[in-house]
Amino acid sequence: MHVAIIGAAGFLGRKLTTALLARGQLRGAALSQLTLADVVAPDTPNGATIPVQCETTDIATPEDIARAIPSGVDVVFHLAAIVSGQAEAEFDTGLRVNLAGPLNIFQRCRALGTTPMVVYASSVAVYGGDMPTPIEDLTILNPQTSYGAQKAIGELLLTDFSRKGFLDGRGLRLPTVTIRPGKPNKAASSFMSSIFREPLQGQPANCPVSPDYPVWLSAPRNTVHNLLHAAELEAAELGTDRCLGLPGMTATIGEMVEAMRRVAGDEPVSRITWERDPELERIVLGWKAHFSPNRARRLGFVEDRNFEDNVRWFLEDDIER
Amino acid sequence: MHVAIIGAAGFLGRKLTTALLARGQLRGAALSQLTLADVVAPDTPNGATIPVQCETTDIATPEDIARAIPSGVDVVFHLAAIVSGQAEAEFDTGLRVNLAGPLNIFQRCRALGTTPMVVYASSVAVYGGDMPTPIEDLTILNPQTSYGAQKAIGELLLTDFSRKGFLDGRGLRLPTVTIRPGKPNKAASSFMSSIFREPLQGQPANCPVSPDYPVWLSAPRNTVHNLLHAAELEAAELGTDRCLGLPGMTATIGEMVEAMRRVAGDEPVSRITWERDPELERIVLGWKAHFSPNRARRLGFVEDRNFEDNVRWFLEDDIER
Repeated sequence: MHVAIIGAAGFLGRKLTTALLARGQLRGAALSQLTLADVVAPDTPNGATIPVQCETTDIATPEDIARAIPSGVDVVFHLAAIVSGQAEAEFDTGLRVNLAGPLNIFQRCRALGTTPMVVYASSVAVYGGDMPTPIEDLTILNPQTSYGAQKAIGELLLTDFSRKGFLDGRGLRLPTVTIRPGKPNKAASSFMSSIFREPLQGQPANCPVSPDYPVWLSAPRNTVHNLLHAAELEAAELGTDRCLGLPGMTATIGEMVEAMRRVAGDEPVSRITWERDPELERIVLGWKAHFSPNRARRLGFVEDRNFEDNVRWFLEDDIER
Repeated sequence: MHVAIIGAAGFLGRKLTTALLARGQLRGAALSQLTLADVVAPDTPNGATIPVQCETTDIATPEDIARAIPSGVDVVFHLAAIVSGQAEAEFDTGLRVNLAGPLNIFQRCRALGTTPMVVYASSVAVYGGDMPTPIEDLTILNPQTSYGAQKAIGELLLTDFSRKGFLDGRGLRLPTVTIRPGKPNKAASSFMSSIFREPLQGQPANCPVSPDYPVWLSAPRNTVHNLLHAAELEAAELGTDRCLGLPGMTATIGEMVEAMRRVAGDEPVSRITWERDPELERIVLGWKAHFSPNRARRLGFVEDRNFEDNVRWFLEDDIER
């Protein structure tokens, strides 16, 4: 079982790498080789007992993708993207990485001729605009950011390449994944992690939206579990649409902050400042927070039960002191 | 008012050209110039009293598109596409013309810097798969052909380019347009015209599906009316999704044949043969036939009332004897 991870240097890619190496198998076959690719060279994981190849990859360049997905690859996890804030600010970069990128990856898989599996990270950002809530499985995608539009385009390509038998695609609309470890990034959702991560690590952080703002979220642990679960499903279980919304939980920023207080006390909460950012609010207020992901639930994907667990898992897995 | 029509040599493009020249204005401004572009050079229309420029254009080539959409263009109608049967048989040609094509056109409009209007012909083929019927305005797009997937991608790009202010897009999901004049083409829907057109013109034609097969259809007259109506709407009327399903009518092939009998007698009906084509049926049985296009109705788009009118209009407008 040779697995390639595109976007392996990101926090989800690193957690997925760790989880794959720990379980040692996928779809009942022993993990035999790992290819890790990202725009910056991924670190070689510690203690790997199988061959791990690390590649520096521009996913919009077909020659790079050929190295990131060498022949013999069985399963590709495609997690790489220009995030929402950057795709909004740099429109052509977004098209290049988030549209040409997946297309290159899918064409490479087609060229292999072996119908490799592709698990594609889409996003809750494919939904937006004037829509009744909750968002149902059959609700039209109506992205209100370029990032969301490009993710939705990747979904359509994934399902069509799958229908043609060029690859075996599974597209997952990830909720906002929080609490992320590491540093803030250019995602408009970045604050949804940093207002917990930084205070828990003794640093200040600003919340640019009202405490009433509701978020559709998923803990990193559950998200990695669901990425692997997608790879374990049989293609027939997905029917005529290879893409689906993942389960999550809805909480307001204020509810999440109170959950952090219950787990970690008053001090981290006191480190949060509350200065609104209208431009950022314009982006994130277009995102949806209420969903009925019944299809994913039926297929056995897991969901967050409370934000306290999310805070505890951050303290167990990720905190940098 | 300078109007460009991409796909002007096709039957809808020619009818749209005729209708535009006949009305002489759009959005209250006198028509001053027409640029007609297609993969084969469009004919110069008879009796035009304004300048008409005809261009041979590969829409996947940016330099060609710059000539097809010269600076000063106010409104672009984009009707050009590789049709469903061909996009299924020639996957890469489909991606080139139906994905890169619209993207080039939208980027050209953006480069003009004047936010030109773009009326984009999408298709009922964006719907498909395991969906409850009727299809509602907010039902997810789930194309089951490459043509449909590529049209849906064009819709997402159109709405995103509009949201960014690069152009003023209006995307219309056309029902099957029948009865088309001219010759059969590689569209899987081609028979839905030829089984009426050929018999009405004294020729035989084969129906490759059962008479029970239902079609979501629109007459050429109503379709051209709706393309022009889309250009007359205010952008704000379209809200956060620039694309919508057009009204149509549902009829089975058998009902359509009986309507032709009522208008034109038994003889044309006797010229139809009924040999099934399983590969073609596989494509068209994936298409949906029952819709509730309430949004388009509220916006004043028109719909067919009966197929007898459709037959009469063909006899008035298009029959070649």
